[in-house]
Amino acid sequence: MAENSVRSVAVVGAGLVGLGWAIVFSRAGLPVTIYDASMEARAAALGRLSASLGDMKAAGLLDNVAELLGRMRVVETLAEAVADADYVQESVFERVNTKTEIANAIGPLLKTGAVVGSSSSGIPASAFIEHATNRERFLIVHPVNPPHLIPLVELVPAPWTDAAIVPAARRFMNMVGQVPIVVNREVEGFILNRLQGALLNEAWALFEEGYASVEDIDLTVSHGLGFRWCFMGPFETIDLNAPGGVADYARRLGPLYHSIAKARSNPKPWNEDLAGRVEAERRQKLAIDQLPERSAWRDRRLMALLRHKNTQSDT
Amino acid sequence: MAENSVRSVAVVGAGLVGLGWAIVFSRAGLPVTIYDASMEARAAALGRLSASLGDMKAAGLLDNVAELLGRMRVVETLAEAVADADYVQESVFERVNTKTEIANAIGPLLKTGAVVGSSSSGIPASAFIEHATNRERFLIVHPVNPPHLIPLVELVPAPWTDAAIVPAARRFMNMVGQVPIVVNREVEGFILNRLQGALLNEAWALFEEGYASVEDIDLTVSHGLGFRWCFMGPFETIDLNAPGGVADYARRLGPLYHSIAKARSNPKPWNEDLAGRVEAERRQKLAIDQLPERSAWRDRRLMALLRHKNTQSDT
Repeated sequence: MAENSVRSVAVVGAGLVGLGWAIVFSRAGLPVTIYDASMEARAAALGRLSASLGDMKAAGLLDNVAELLGRMRVVETLAEAVADADYVQESVFERVNTKTEIANAIGPLLKTGAVVGSSSSGIPASAFIEHATNRERFLIVHPVNPPHLIPLVELVPAPWTDAAIVPAARRFMNMVGQVPIVVNREVEGFILNRLQGALLNEAWALFEEGYASVEDIDLTVSHGLGFRWCFMGPFETIDLNAPGGVADYARRLGPLYHSIAKARSNPKPWNEDLAGRVEAERRQKLAIDQLPERSAWRDRRLMALLRHKNTQSDT
Repeated sequence: MAENSVRSVAVVGAGLVGLGWAIVFSRAGLPVTIYDASMEARAAALGRLSASLGDMKAAGLLDNVAELLGRMRVVETLAEAVADADYVQESVFERVNTKTEIANAIGPLLKTGAVVGSSSSGIPASAFIEHATNRERFLIVHPVNPPHLIPLVELVPAPWTDAAIVPAARRFMNMVGQVPIVVNREVEGFILNRLQGALLNEAWALFEEGYASVEDIDLTVSHGLGFRWCFMGPFETIDLNAPGGVADYARRLGPLYHSIAKARSNPKPWNEDLAGRVEAERRQKLAIDQLPERSAWRDRRLMALLRHKNTQSDT
């Protein structure tokens, strides 16, 4: 796959993630074939895509809905989806056996030189591509959900992935407007969920120990830490927070952070009782039947934020 | 301090943090007296405030610069600053002996019922107010820097703080437009820096172990995790990320995060060698003499983001 020679893309799995990917590729001008093993999912796909694109148009993110839809085609078989694709994005249900089956099915259908990225958020490629035909052309291409609104993508090779695939996939993801990073080798949770998990673990522990409420811990991020992290990473943030840069910061504050880490050297699981108490606090803020409405609010905020970020300069 | 009876505020310490606080209070319509032990800092204060307010005006955050400046007065003595103040925000240099000296000096000058918030980001109030006059009216009121652009404030009582002070300070901070949270009792790093530290510790470890570059770890946050955390906290984020809410999420993903935490049960310090390697990567992106320019970019982005957030609904 030379990234500038990708002329057609296949999306396998037409759930939320797969359909988000279809928007990403179509937005970049590429024809997209869409396949899902479920007839219901295939039947619903274009309607759901149309609704998502309508929301994006309403948010000012695009205005060529018909053009984007015109580049998407739902097909009835996996073979038809993959046959002409230079790049295949697989987003089927995240279970090892489901991932294994689809990798084994896709492998023999691949066009010469085509690459397969799996949207797996946690299962490493080595767990499901070992016996796939053309396994050297598979890697993890893990998006944040939804991929058409949050651009970060994690590229994680398996031990068998051809070394040339990762940089090519990185260039291709850049070309379609995503922000790819490379995870040099497999690690549990990859980078994004490990960083999220580290913060979550601390948040759960602080709540469990009675230092602050769920709501106050949330505010600390949504009206504090998240301001900088919305446009700068953690290293750049601290690089700008000491007169001499990041090494200066490390000398000043490294001992504090090491002390905090040592205090968490015996981490507890999120047990049922604790989860019940977190749940109770959340349900006071938001009834369970309001989750879909709040998710729609979240997506509106994501769209508005993306539009805001698109107007800003990273330099 | 009944929050609606605060008619005058004193800002003690006219560095970046103190001057940011002066803007917060003046923006809320309150007269502010400003004092710093350094004659140079006093002489420079109004010019620096004027420049900051000009930047905010240029960013569309306010247009009444002269009105705000008109409510600020730099005074020559601590007694003059504090005499009429119903609330005192102390933001002197963060050393225990400096904090102790100023607490001992402010205590006897306080008007009846006045409250003192210290901007301390790490030193707990119990380390410096024990022997202060009126120590029951001191607490930590820790802002994010700069306080006029990032609204989160941590309120942390000392063991001697009058129990009525914390809720009153919370209402007062809400009244002046900040977003206060309560840390129920002292803990190293309070909430914000513990959450930041947890993510930083994981980031440093992932870099040290060769999983990803400094730049890619930064991108994971600035173009991934930070999208949601800019307007939702970690608990709300996961509450919306499982069909059954946060307890459902905990059942599905708690074991993964516990496993990640256990793998970090022997945390290493950020040693000099490692800090040097992080520094080297950052300096390839940004020369040391460009730090001030990049900090100005960060502040422009913060102002634009604040303006964006002000246009959005939290419901």
